Amino acid sequence: MASNIDIPTPRHKVNPTLTEERLKATFDPNRITHLLDDSSAGTKRRHYLESLIENDPSNVFNNDNNNYLHRTDRHINSLAKFVRLIEICRSIGVGDDDNGLLKVDTDFSTLLNCVADDLPAALHWVMFVPNILSLADDEQQKEWLKMCRDWKMIGCYAQTELGHGSNVRALETTATFVKDKNDGHFIINSPTLTSFKFWPGTLGRTSNHAMVIARLIDGEGIDRGMHNFLVQTRSLDDHSLMPGVVCGDIGPKIGYNNMDNGFAKFDHVKIPRRSMAMRFAVVDRNGVYKKKIISDAASKINYITMMQVRSYIVRAASLALRMGTTITIRYSAVRKQGFKTEMGGMKEEHQILDYKQQQYRLFPLLAASYCFFFSAKRVHDNLKSIENRLMNLSNNQQSISKIEVGDIHATTSCLKSFTTAITADGLEDCRKSCGGHGFLASSGLPELINSYLQNPTVEGDNAMLPMQVVKILLKLVKDVQSKDTKAIGEWSKCNSSYLIEPVQAMLNRNEIPSCDVSTREDMLDVSVCLKAFQHRAARLLVNLANQIQAEVMEGKSFETAWNGALIQMGRVSKAHSLYLLLSNFIDGIKEASKTVLGPNEARVLGDLALLFGLYWIEKDSGEFLVDGYFSAQQMQWAHVSILVMLDKVRPNAVALVDANDFSDFRLKSALGRFDGNVYEAIMESAKKDPLNSTEPGPGYEEHLKRLIVDGVGVYTGTASRL
Amino acid sequence: MASNIDIPTPRHKVNPTLTEERLKATFDPNRITHLLDDSSAGTKRRHYLESLIENDPSNVFNNDNNNYLHRTDRHINSLAKFVRLIEICRSIGVGDDDNGLLKVDTDFSTLLNCVADDLPAALHWVMFVPNILSLADDEQQKEWLKMCRDWKMIGCYAQTELGHGSNVRALETTATFVKDKNDGHFIINSPTLTSFKFWPGTLGRTSNHAMVIARLIDGEGIDRGMHNFLVQTRSLDDHSLMPGVVCGDIGPKIGYNNMDNGFAKFDHVKIPRRSMAMRFAVVDRNGVYKKKIISDAASKINYITMMQVRSYIVRAASLALRMGTTITIRYSAVRKQGFKTEMGGMKEEHQILDYKQQQYRLFPLLAASYCFFFSAKRVHDNLKSIENRLMNLSNNQQSISKIEVGDIHATTSCLKSFTTAITADGLEDCRKSCGGHGFLASSGLPELINSYLQNPTVEGDNAMLPMQVVKILLKLVKDVQSKDTKAIGEWSKCNSSYLIEPVQAMLNRNEIPSCDVSTREDMLDVSVCLKAFQHRAARLLVNLANQIQAEVMEGKSFETAWNGALIQMGRVSKAHSLYLLLSNFIDGIKEASKTVLGPNEARVLGDLALLFGLYWIEKDSGEFLVDGYFSAQQMQWAHVSILVMLDKVRPNAVALVDANDFSDFRLKSALGRFDGNVYEAIMESAKKDPLNSTEPGPGYEEHLKRLIVDGVGVYTGTASRL
Repeated sequence: MASNIDIPTPRHKVNPTLTEERLKATFDPNRITHLLDDSSAGTKRRHYLESLIENDPSNVFNNDNNNYLHRTDRHINSLAKFVRLIEICRSIGVGDDDNGLLKVDTDFSTLLNCVADDLPAALHWVMFVPNILSLADDEQQKEWLKMCRDWKMIGCYAQTELGHGSNVRALETTATFVKDKNDGHFIINSPTLTSFKFWPGTLGRTSNHAMVIARLIDGEGIDRGMHNFLVQTRSLDDHSLMPGVVCGDIGPKIGYNNMDNGFAKFDHVKIPRRSMAMRFAVVDRNGVYKKKIISDAASKINYITMMQVRSYIVRAASLALRMGTTITIRYSAVRKQGFKTEMGGMKEEHQILDYKQQQYRLFPLLAASYCFFFSAKRVHDNLKSIENRLMNLSNNQQSISKIEVGDIHATTSCLKSFTTAITADGLEDCRKSCGGHGFLASSGLPELINSYLQNPTVEGDNAMLPMQVVKILLKLVKDVQSKDTKAIGEWSKCNSSYLIEPVQAMLNRNEIPSCDVSTREDMLDVSVCLKAFQHRAARLLVNLANQIQAEVMEGKSFETAWNGALIQMGRVSKAHSLYLLLSNFIDGIKEASKTVLGPNEARVLGDLALLFGLYWIEKDSGEFLVDGYFSAQQMQWAHVSILVMLDKVRPNAVALVDANDFSDFRLKSALGRFDGNVYEAIMESAKKDPLNSTEPGPGYEEHLKRLIVDGVGVYTGTASRL
Repeated sequence: MASNIDIPTPRHKVNPTLTEERLKATFDPNRITHLLDDSSAGTKRRHYLESLIENDPSNVFNNDNNNYLHRTDRHINSLAKFVRLIEICRSIGVGDDDNGLLKVDTDFSTLLNCVADDLPAALHWVMFVPNILSLADDEQQKEWLKMCRDWKMIGCYAQTELGHGSNVRALETTATFVKDKNDGHFIINSPTLTSFKFWPGTLGRTSNHAMVIARLIDGEGIDRGMHNFLVQTRSLDDHSLMPGVVCGDIGPKIGYNNMDNGFAKFDHVKIPRRSMAMRFAVVDRNGVYKKKIISDAASKINYITMMQVRSYIVRAASLALRMGTTITIRYSAVRKQGFKTEMGGMKEEHQILDYKQQQYRLFPLLAASYCFFFSAKRVHDNLKSIENRLMNLSNNQQSISKIEVGDIHATTSCLKSFTTAITADGLEDCRKSCGGHGFLASSGLPELINSYLQNPTVEGDNAMLPMQVVKILLKLVKDVQSKDTKAIGEWSKCNSSYLIEPVQAMLNRNEIPSCDVSTREDMLDVSVCLKAFQHRAARLLVNLANQIQAEVMEGKSFETAWNGALIQMGRVSKAHSLYLLLSNFIDGIKEASKTVLGPNEARVLGDLALLFGLYWIEKDSGEFLVDGYFSAQQMQWAHVSILVMLDKVRPNAVALVDANDFSDFRLKSALGRFDGNVYEAIMESAKKDPLNSTEPGPGYEEHLKRLIVDGVGVYTGTASRL
């Protein structure tokens, strides 16, 4: 038995190095915590909800053994957690509105975060219910939402197919109308292997209903394209599969393994006619298809609602990066390596956090973690205000232009793409910058990273989104070019408005502007960075427009010209996001200074904004040098300014991650503990591995013994070299 | 039961799209296979060894269920595989030299690769035995190596400690000499928690001996620094722990989980005096410490041997990247998405591989996968030839200068750092570019990536190595500056020789050179890229030297100036590697054209070399624009030239990954199969998940049923909002 492993248990006394770091801070971390929770009341509420989970007497939420369990056991545990979570929600009224109806509640999201583990059925609430709210008609909503609220119906959103990802038009599943003596019905069918539904979360094992996206064939045999159909997949009595339905789990993934992402094959499954979501179109009992006349506002609300998912993704990027930097910066403060030569004979080691290349890896990510928060908030508020405007309109009155819709689409697309890319890479860089121990599951980073890795791919693959961004921004160029004053007026109310003026100037072939900084000190000004980002985005966009135009004039097909420009589109999209991110960062700090932040906190966040700007200017230096916007001298100043800002951020680094206020329960990291007793925690965790449960270890008797004792490996001299 | 999942099994007929791709190739993939295997005989030998594993009647090597097993079971299976592998080796004489003595055999490495799974005890052969060969004296070798050969002694190399990574000087484990009536002995002790040995592979469960790096305290109580001590950790009879030793596994990691990386605590463990490895120093029975007089050549051979590990790491980077690109390029050829607009009404979808941004992601990685191969080979040959020169010297005759040793150190350090960074990021980008299915374990990419991720950290953390590179290259600058002709003569025989001339010119403040390309077509010349890399490396190096010098003159401490330059050191190191990589790529193709490659193959590899060069010029465009070496116009031509090269590589892409000649057994990827029947393979794999073993799935009865049937989630209207 390995119980003789004699390891000191964590001391629960804070590592003095961390205490010193905390004393260095020039600001009050609590005020930033309130900012992240929206208000001090928000922080209080979160603490209350966290305590419900962390102190739950059932102990079902304990995550201590997560890393040591087989995937199947983790899935089972996560089901147990979910049932208990719903029990808690019911007991405190989370999820009900004032009339006992269903409410998609922010408290519910907070509780999900507090659980600090992925729960399969969460998607019911996060994707399935909103889908019904968007696409079902009033009568359907009344019936279905009650079942959803009571957790009788557990649903998933089944769009992608084995052979078809984001290209919705290529989906093969069919829903064919069949007239009968009664109301009529649909036959849902998977005609090919590639048409199997594949990937939907909770489809495999947990859900009993699926909102299936299928090609509608109406009563006349006409293909009406994609529509949504509610298909019951499992019995409500015993969870057995419904006739003609086969579902299962798609197997282990790089991360997110509690979730039963599933596949489904539908073999001529019969569903009632009224299972088609009928808010926007109906098929009547004779099989006649009809689009409903929906107010412009109503259809746009629907669109806007869908775009909110992207603002959540940006917020999730911030959250994940804040967790990653919390772990890594705390550990880099307590981890020591390399002797101080200046100390002479003394054998004191450096804190890793004092090395400039470590600061250069981590502080820009720290800055990004806050930066993304402000953009997520801004975009969310933006979408909410559009939604409110639309809600308060009388029918058919148009209040939001196509341009405004396009602009917000471009904004969310480029932000989704850029923030998830930076976060995925950034988390991995956090892990690498923890050295060997970042490789340990007990560091908390592997699971954080691997579960995060879905984000660059879902809700619009990061490689594809830039095309959509560019398509919209090219419209702006065209409107400016053709001097369409009405359109320009619309653009000027949008996020992309900053592009109008420089695009205009470039199209008029005005003199190329350049950065006007003339001393190193002047470079320490965030508006210099913002102007540079503005210029760069406009320049890349206009170049792209000119290039496509020129190639088409030369006789290339539009498709070929477009394909040849795809690489640059990624750069345009990135440039657009960087302007928006920095601009929202600056505005956000200003805004928050009127409420929760004091001047010290605003100053510290301002340092991060400046570091963020300078870092990305140097990172993309070629794009600022190529047209002479920056001179070599200015670029050199930018580099030196980065070093200045790293020094400035250094004393506040630990306090800035403390401000995230993640409990140890949530971080699940031996390296990121608040008390900094990392080595005790690592050993404590290692003891739990099942490989240590017997002495000698598993596999010795059956295998290793044959080699060492039985002599399988002994040289006999009889083998001739083959 | 889920056995009713009715999935078509793979057709074992090649996907016609892949057949078409293969017909497009302009060269013979077999000839490139021979290059990668060193000769056609090498390919034949590999095929023979592969067949021993893949067709082994015991079926113990089957990897089909790997993704579905708990870590403990995978560890056990890997022990079974290892024992069987040794049995096979014994039967064909692999591992024995002609006299029945131990031989670290390339066939053994090939067999390890063929197993396509990580085997814990492999490190015995790869790290432990070479360590004995380097550091033990003749008598010790005689005794120990026999036990190693017979697999009685299974060893590991125990250096790093819980609180101390690569800073060897900070290690805390002690080996204190104690005089006794007989021969004297050492006491090995772990005085603190942070001194626990932590990380060594196979230390936890598999090995029975450890080569422990400890601080030697001799008979006079004098600290003699780090030395190696062979410590028996487990009984040879029953694998039980030796008195005073506690070892165990350190727990799960982001990857490489078959391996029992371990910890060890030594509580005053007594070992014989002669357990200290005594090739370079001895402690006699009275406790007197003495360094041995070793020939300059002998100590250098030792150093050179250790550096070979880095050449293996570069080779492993090539191998991993070749696997990643094989999977991704094949899948991108058969995966279709987005309708062809040019086809009018036809509903044909594009091959993903036709999108320029997909080519831009994958082809430079394809190029890198070959590029790294040539550098690994070159460095390996380089080290071997130095070793041979040293072997053929009479004692004390010096034949290889300190400069030459430094140069090869800088070369291996920068190549290790750059190639492992590019490979780790590149594999992840391969995964992302497979869209959703790259997230599946059955794609083969998650395990490939996660096990690879140790490489940027081990054998010199990538973030630290650039300092060592720069330290050495600054010596070159100094020698050039001080016009030390003897030293310059030495440098001119080295890998860094290309730096001498441009460094000289810069120090003399000659006119800054610039790229002389004057048409777009002239940019399609790999020597243009090579010259650019040469200039960039020299410029960054000289700038760095000047900066440190200037800051010290201004009164900063050297340590502060050095710390402030760390970020730039990373850039110098990268610039140095890029020159070496491209130069070795070009030379390697030329060399191979004399033997295995025909003109067609050389041309195709030449296309990759040019793409590699152009890609990295654009990627780092700022560094080429900032001093005017490239003009904006030239940089634009470089971009267009990349597009030209992507087009050129496109028809050969599938054949170029076929040339790697990985069997499906080795790739373990549903997406990368030679026959391209990816969707059948994905479903085939999904069926195996234990979550699909019962219907309804695990956890329904205990948990989910409470929610759906028992009504835990039903709204009761009694909860008041808390």
